[in-house]
Amino acid sequence: MLKLFYSPGACSLASHIALEEAGADYEAVRVDLKSGEQNRPEYRKLNPKGRVPALATERGVLTESPVILGYIAQTHPEAKLAPNDDSFAFGDMQAFNMFLAASVHVAYAHAFRPERYVKGEAGVAAAKARTPEALDEYFNQIEDRFADGRPYVHGEAYTVSDPYLYVFTRWLERDGLGHPERYPQVLAHRQRLDTRPAVRKVIAAEGLPWEI
Amino acid sequence: MLKLFYSPGACSLASHIALEEAGADYEAVRVDLKSGEQNRPEYRKLNPKGRVPALATERGVLTESPVILGYIAQTHPEAKLAPNDDSFAFGDMQAFNMFLAASVHVAYAHAFRPERYVKGEAGVAAAKARTPEALDEYFNQIEDRFADGRPYVHGEAYTVSDPYLYVFTRWLERDGLGHPERYPQVLAHRQRLDTRPAVRKVIAAEGLPWEI
Repeated sequence: MLKLFYSPGACSLASHIALEEAGADYEAVRVDLKSGEQNRPEYRKLNPKGRVPALATERGVLTESPVILGYIAQTHPEAKLAPNDDSFAFGDMQAFNMFLAASVHVAYAHAFRPERYVKGEAGVAAAKARTPEALDEYFNQIEDRFADGRPYVHGEAYTVSDPYLYVFTRWLERDGLGHPERYPQVLAHRQRLDTRPAVRKVIAAEGLPWEI
Repeated sequence: MLKLFYSPGACSLASHIALEEAGADYEAVRVDLKSGEQNRPEYRKLNPKGRVPALATERGVLTESPVILGYIAQTHPEAKLAPNDDSFAFGDMQAFNMFLAASVHVAYAHAFRPERYVKGEAGVAAAKARTPEALDEYFNQIEDRFADGRPYVHGEAYTVSDPYLYVFTRWLERDGLGHPERYPQVLAHRQRLDTRPAVRKVIAAEGLPWEI
């Protein structure tokens, strides 16, 4: 059985939803980031990077959201959560997921964990000041993808990119960092996901509010 | 035929080496980042993110180094540049590549392009000041992987993670940002790659010095 190590509302939410959409045999294990559980030896043994998500499989532990999302899709082909048999389309999907991981998530992290990126008080303020600008740039790019009326990130087919985007759209409402009203198609995408049974089940399981 | 858009010595070097190792039918097209060629309409049409590498295929354009590296490995299985038929091992390889992309490369980018991450002069200084510390933390983690005497990132088999790590090990010598002497196994890995015909050919093709 798979074990997903997650923190409520963190980017691990995407992997949690993907496991549910896949009908996977899994257990979700909560890691309390506020009390520093991710830095305890037991967790560091599992994931030396001390972050979530981590997915324990029979073969070992996988980390990084795009990797876990790709693995869930590939090992549950019947759920059709990715174009598994098409190297180009799968790569194109992962390029979007990597953009979320290395640009969008990193922009948020400059507000949530600035000490990871800058040294000193003035740096912390400068990092936090940049986050809303960077997010606006990235979300405008994402809004553009939906200009052709597509319901999902990659077109007509739902993929693991959809719950991953959903996480970061939700975060726009945190700490006044983002302006969700500027991206109507992205917001419509969020609402589309809000109605999915797998999403509703996981939001309830993580104890998250519908509006953050 | 594949077309790789690269800038000499940039992270696109990894994809360039991988194409050469794969024996791929490709053309390498130089993008002059210093003159801002990546921001011209022709290039933005190809890659709206305005970055390298970008790989033009018959199906369309792929971006993000881990994606391009994974695609090269999967479409040239005879070159054995990745565990293509093993979802777990392939995911584990990509988790390392994502760590390079989202942590190591991002740490360097705070020194090279701080304005992407912070606002104002004080922020730029604070971002640059943090880079050497973050790199030291990440390269210590990488050094630990080699503690068992393995020649390559993932063990006995050479994979696309090897040229990708090679790029960032080379960058340690840039602008006094890193301390290569602190990571003897990582340096030995760099020297191991320096002797490979594909690496030698690409270093010459990009016009790079052996020591930066």
